[in-house]
Amino acid sequence: MSTTHSFFTSRWIEVPGNVTELPGGLPNGFRAAGVACGIKPSGGLDLGLLASSAPDTTSAARFTRSGTQSAPVLLCRERCNLNGIRAVVVNAGNANAATGRPGFENAAKMQGAAALAGGVGVESAVAVASTGVIGVPLPMSAVMQGIVGASHALRPDGEGDFARSIRTTDALEKHASLEVELEAGTVRLSAQAKGAGMISPNFATLLCFVQTDAALSAETCELLLGVTVKRSFERVSVDGQLSTSDTVILQASGESGVQVDPETEDEVHFGEALDALLRQLALYIVRDGEGARRIGRVVVRGGDDSSVARVAHAVADSPLVKTALYGGDPNWGRIVQAVGMAMPGTAPLAVDVAIEGVQVCRAGQYVPHDADALRSAVQREEIEYEIGLPGEGAEVERYFSDLGHEYVTLNAEYTT
Amino acid sequence: MSTTHSFFTSRWIEVPGNVTELPGGLPNGFRAAGVACGIKPSGGLDLGLLASSAPDTTSAARFTRSGTQSAPVLLCRERCNLNGIRAVVVNAGNANAATGRPGFENAAKMQGAAALAGGVGVESAVAVASTGVIGVPLPMSAVMQGIVGASHALRPDGEGDFARSIRTTDALEKHASLEVELEAGTVRLSAQAKGAGMISPNFATLLCFVQTDAALSAETCELLLGVTVKRSFERVSVDGQLSTSDTVILQASGESGVQVDPETEDEVHFGEALDALLRQLALYIVRDGEGARRIGRVVVRGGDDSSVARVAHAVADSPLVKTALYGGDPNWGRIVQAVGMAMPGTAPLAVDVAIEGVQVCRAGQYVPHDADALRSAVQREEIEYEIGLPGEGAEVERYFSDLGHEYVTLNAEYTT
Repeated sequence: MSTTHSFFTSRWIEVPGNVTELPGGLPNGFRAAGVACGIKPSGGLDLGLLASSAPDTTSAARFTRSGTQSAPVLLCRERCNLNGIRAVVVNAGNANAATGRPGFENAAKMQGAAALAGGVGVESAVAVASTGVIGVPLPMSAVMQGIVGASHALRPDGEGDFARSIRTTDALEKHASLEVELEAGTVRLSAQAKGAGMISPNFATLLCFVQTDAALSAETCELLLGVTVKRSFERVSVDGQLSTSDTVILQASGESGVQVDPETEDEVHFGEALDALLRQLALYIVRDGEGARRIGRVVVRGGDDSSVARVAHAVADSPLVKTALYGGDPNWGRIVQAVGMAMPGTAPLAVDVAIEGVQVCRAGQYVPHDADALRSAVQREEIEYEIGLPGEGAEVERYFSDLGHEYVTLNAEYTT
Repeated sequence: MSTTHSFFTSRWIEVPGNVTELPGGLPNGFRAAGVACGIKPSGGLDLGLLASSAPDTTSAARFTRSGTQSAPVLLCRERCNLNGIRAVVVNAGNANAATGRPGFENAAKMQGAAALAGGVGVESAVAVASTGVIGVPLPMSAVMQGIVGASHALRPDGEGDFARSIRTTDALEKHASLEVELEAGTVRLSAQAKGAGMISPNFATLLCFVQTDAALSAETCELLLGVTVKRSFERVSVDGQLSTSDTVILQASGESGVQVDPETEDEVHFGEALDALLRQLALYIVRDGEGARRIGRVVVRGGDDSSVARVAHAVADSPLVKTALYGGDPNWGRIVQAVGMAMPGTAPLAVDVAIEGVQVCRAGQYVPHDADALRSAVQREEIEYEIGLPGEGAEVERYFSDLGHEYVTLNAEYTT
């Protein structure tokens, strides 16, 4: 089959052979809409509704671990049947965070209204998400009008408007519709995400909604979402900051009639498609650091699970590494410094470092190399850093954006 | 006594009544020098030597915990009598880090040469420090010539040249000479520091050398340096990065003839003077973030020792908080976000936040306040953030610089 992958653009994503990109449309059973209700000062789309018509839709969800979770996250965790979410209501422009009990009640009102508007009936089958400014009460009459308006606009190909309505300062589109060929038949898989990492002024959230018409048990949803989120959204860093509102939801309507059973080839192949989808979306989020020139991938090998994770975090979150990435500077001393910071008390640590395949440090000591070749290699858009720790237990990768003037401008010159 | 405190400038430092600032000079028994030996491309002073003539000089030292410690740090830990350091040799422009065994041997050569040059004889009484670019071999013939040159230039008032020779991209002078009145007599106390936090391109180190002519036991040196470093250099953050080379050394020559005994009033008073000195130096380092407009102080109360420390770190290291500080933006939602990140799994967390005394959040919920007054309050040079966690166990403070365009320019546009 010949197909153009306009969504899959990174050299770091392997697109499975059974995946075909579609021009658009939601999987069978789903409808979506996005409308403008007046929360965003710009007048842009700011309220999204998405619903499944299948009564036994299954689902799984993941949320931020923040101690200051937004009201909608608290509501979802307390009052949703997270394995049977049929509808999702989302607003952008106001995070409904640091809003206390009144904020929680507003999130509950959104849930109730969306249960009616989405034709779902049971409130516990509706998830709520909000993204935007922290610490400001939601304008509830606008929100409620928006929900009513969205209910009239629900369409099987409404995912584009829905995706736009959940975005804030995102520069890039972040949605895709895929067809996935399985042995048991063909299913569809789509997703809409929002997030410029945490770099947007006051808007600081990852949202991602994923739909399929494959028939998955709730346990399979849990398993697949758990594994693929760990390999995608949990591996990216823009500025190392954790949002009050991160929410990822996978819903399976079963309307294709194709059952994906546990421990089958089809489960593996469906999982691979989901994996590629979420990883590419995660890379768009890293890339979207407004004005980000380059993204980095750090691969850490050796040591143990804890040490490779600490080192990957330290490198990906280091402002010194990020500014060097931005400047196209092959400044490997900063990599060594970040590794040392992540591994206190281990000196002298026999660390290896390679940048774009050029070995610059071995066993803690510089390696003579062609500095000019390295300098031109780090001018590309995707830069790879490989780090070796003593021992050979583990391996982890992490993706990160650079740190440039646009980050400072957006985050310093924005006024509340 | 009336005196001008040109060194003590922060509202956050209480200068003890028994401390008088002197125009310059080292405590009795010490001599110092700084010379240019050709390590810095600029031709500036880049080699410093400091020595005590008293054979039973006592000392204490603290080093970076990095796993990729520089060769001089490894050498000091392995081959120095850290309670009897008489001389210190320092170069700037090259960190002698990630240089492996040859780097260690070069540090040992510096130690041997400085033992002769400083008139100390015993190599284990000489501490070595280097700051500058990582991963480049030290130009040893230049260094050795520099040590010989410095030995001829040693003077009781050489601390200014010494201080300049250990600086790299520091914009501010960071040295002081004080007189401290104790019951047992008057002693002198001086210090020379280097550091623009970790924000300098490739130069990423805190160095601080402290001298007194009080007679302190080695145990008293340990105790006082331990306590005061915790309250000063360990409480500051420029960009949260840990250097390969941080070194702080306190030396006591005893040449004043004034003995400071353990558990006496004089020990307390001497400790208070040392505390004020190191805290003000630490604030200069934060302030020195080249181009930093503002510095912040975050005070976290409540919770327990671990939670207040985590929250203070998260706020001080948050690029979102730092860019808001730079922009003069009272963006308290970012404080709430950083607190939540430091306290995963505690939602909903009843956090209180006040900025410059204005309560903006109580028990996790916004508090109506005069936004205009708050906005003008955060235009000052020193901004105070107070955070309350549930419970009332602990309290910690932390100082941090802002994050502005100058940081990006320096760290991105510098080329190795």
